[in-house]
Amino acid sequence: MTDRTIDWIEGEIHLIDQTRLPDELVVLRVTSLDALVDAIARLAVRGAPALGVAGALGVALLARLQADEASIRAGAARLRAARPTAVNLAWGVDRALARVPDGPDAVLAEALAVRDEDIAACAAMATRGADLVRELIARPRIRVMTICNTGALAAVEHGTALGVVEELHERGMLEEALPLETRPLLQGARLTAWELARMGAPYRLLVDGAAASVLARGLADVVLIGADRITANGDTANKVGSLSLALGARNAGVPFLVVAPETTVDPAAATGAGIRIEERGADEVTGFRDTRWAPEGARTLNPAFDVTPARLITAIVTDARVIRTDRGETPSG
Amino acid sequence: MTDRTIDWIEGEIHLIDQTRLPDELVVLRVTSLDALVDAIARLAVRGAPALGVAGALGVALLARLQADEASIRAGAARLRAARPTAVNLAWGVDRALARVPDGPDAVLAEALAVRDEDIAACAAMATRGADLVRELIARPRIRVMTICNTGALAAVEHGTALGVVEELHERGMLEEALPLETRPLLQGARLTAWELARMGAPYRLLVDGAAASVLARGLADVVLIGADRITANGDTANKVGSLSLALGARNAGVPFLVVAPETTVDPAAATGAGIRIEERGADEVTGFRDTRWAPEGARTLNPAFDVTPARLITAIVTDARVIRTDRGETPSG
Repeated sequence: MTDRTIDWIEGEIHLIDQTRLPDELVVLRVTSLDALVDAIARLAVRGAPALGVAGALGVALLARLQADEASIRAGAARLRAARPTAVNLAWGVDRALARVPDGPDAVLAEALAVRDEDIAACAAMATRGADLVRELIARPRIRVMTICNTGALAAVEHGTALGVVEELHERGMLEEALPLETRPLLQGARLTAWELARMGAPYRLLVDGAAASVLARGLADVVLIGADRITANGDTANKVGSLSLALGARNAGVPFLVVAPETTVDPAAATGAGIRIEERGADEVTGFRDTRWAPEGARTLNPAFDVTPARLITAIVTDARVIRTDRGETPSG
Repeated sequence: MTDRTIDWIEGEIHLIDQTRLPDELVVLRVTSLDALVDAIARLAVRGAPALGVAGALGVALLARLQADEASIRAGAARLRAARPTAVNLAWGVDRALARVPDGPDAVLAEALAVRDEDIAACAAMATRGADLVRELIARPRIRVMTICNTGALAAVEHGTALGVVEELHERGMLEEALPLETRPLLQGARLTAWELARMGAPYRLLVDGAAASVLARGLADVVLIGADRITANGDTANKVGSLSLALGARNAGVPFLVVAPETTVDPAAATGAGIRIEERGADEVTGFRDTRWAPEGARTLNPAFDVTPARLITAIVTDARVIRTDRGETPSG
């Protein structure tokens, strides 16, 4: 049993089964490639940083189970294919795989380094983010609106944007968190609310459509979001609903902060204009789990992400720096 | 059986049971006060105009069933209390009740007048709204985004904003409707999608958080919404999510039109600043029907309405006029 979303304990990968949350906290003990591939495919583990660690630890597991390098590489290919669009999963697999010639202990050391680097990056973002919130907002206790799940469940120990919320809470500076439920997959209602309850932080859950008016009524002091990809000019791709939230924040004069690791910055992409928006299936929109509410055969438009232009972002907080987009700074300098 | 949401047929009130939609179309034949009070209380009939008609027809039914005026008035009081905050319900009851001294036929005539006036008002809004869309948008076939249910199910025959969509469809001018699902009660996913399918109009359903980015990507030409209340300066109270949608439309340079009957205009209220925002229960946010997805004991912030300031509204279309708020016109002149 671990407090981490994913970890290596006595030769096994332990991970929280996120499909069971918030109903129950189940820790899966993974001892085979099949079990790990299954856990990744059915989203028992999700979130870019957590998937990177899962990939690296998966190769470490393979290196202990398989004697020959060809079998390890074949297993790694299966692991990488468990979620083909998850860049971090492949990245974690490849980092560990590079050490296979040096033996299983070296592979494990590399995988644990991937894990520890994520923990350190989240800790750095939490400190820097909380300091920036303090600097921007005079109010002694802060009311923070956020979207999706950017907490420990997306990483290893503390998360990105929600890591900042946790840091504010630990400093006694959090009046209230206002997580948006985040349709269609409800990561805010299911996962973020669960994490907030677990850390003992006061929170109230909102539907996504209420964000702009709650901001306009002066009920939040700052908005914190994560990022899937940040381009050279500061445009930020994130969970669908983020652009709407940024417009609501701008309308209300509330600072809008992006919190994400440096690895999210893609300096090769000049702006967000070229980012392909993944369109997902109708089932996510027409209902949830076994409940359907739209008419049979309803067509949907279901973009998984959106792009918030840099002009709507106050600052980007990474593990290495604060980029004040409101002062014309960009990730590329 | 009727094509109208609510109607008077051979001495009975017939109404579509909206709680059964979109799964099945059930028409309730109401022949007693108890049955009508029950239908109103459990939202089998909803929407301001429809409730006005329900109130008036309910008194007509009472006037036929009860010989003495005191019994009719006692029944009318029960009817009015079925949804105490529904202003239109009380208004419809009172209009019919005023004719009780003239006998049951006079009461019925008044109730049918309430019904026919709603039908005429919706028809006028549909024509005027479609004409305005034609004037504002050069594109031959129009893509319309909308929120909540403002269709026939909220009125008698054609609805307000969705009545305009239907008119565009009948004129061959509708490329696609883009209804937002409208959390928490999902009127867009359940009722608007059902109405669009029924009228044979092409549509795609969206989660509320996707509206701003879909608008920013140029996928909609106009936004049409209804209204619960319009103040003297043009500020508009409507279903939660409307302000967010207005900000998304403004960001994308897309016209944002409010379609509502003159009876919605409240000239006594100077601006939207004084409008009380109804806060509703947590159950609506923590799940839907029997499905729960938030953690046990989750607190919520659940405003049922929001206020869109006149500066974000291009025009207000009523049954009597077009108010070009974008040119500084206001409902009060």
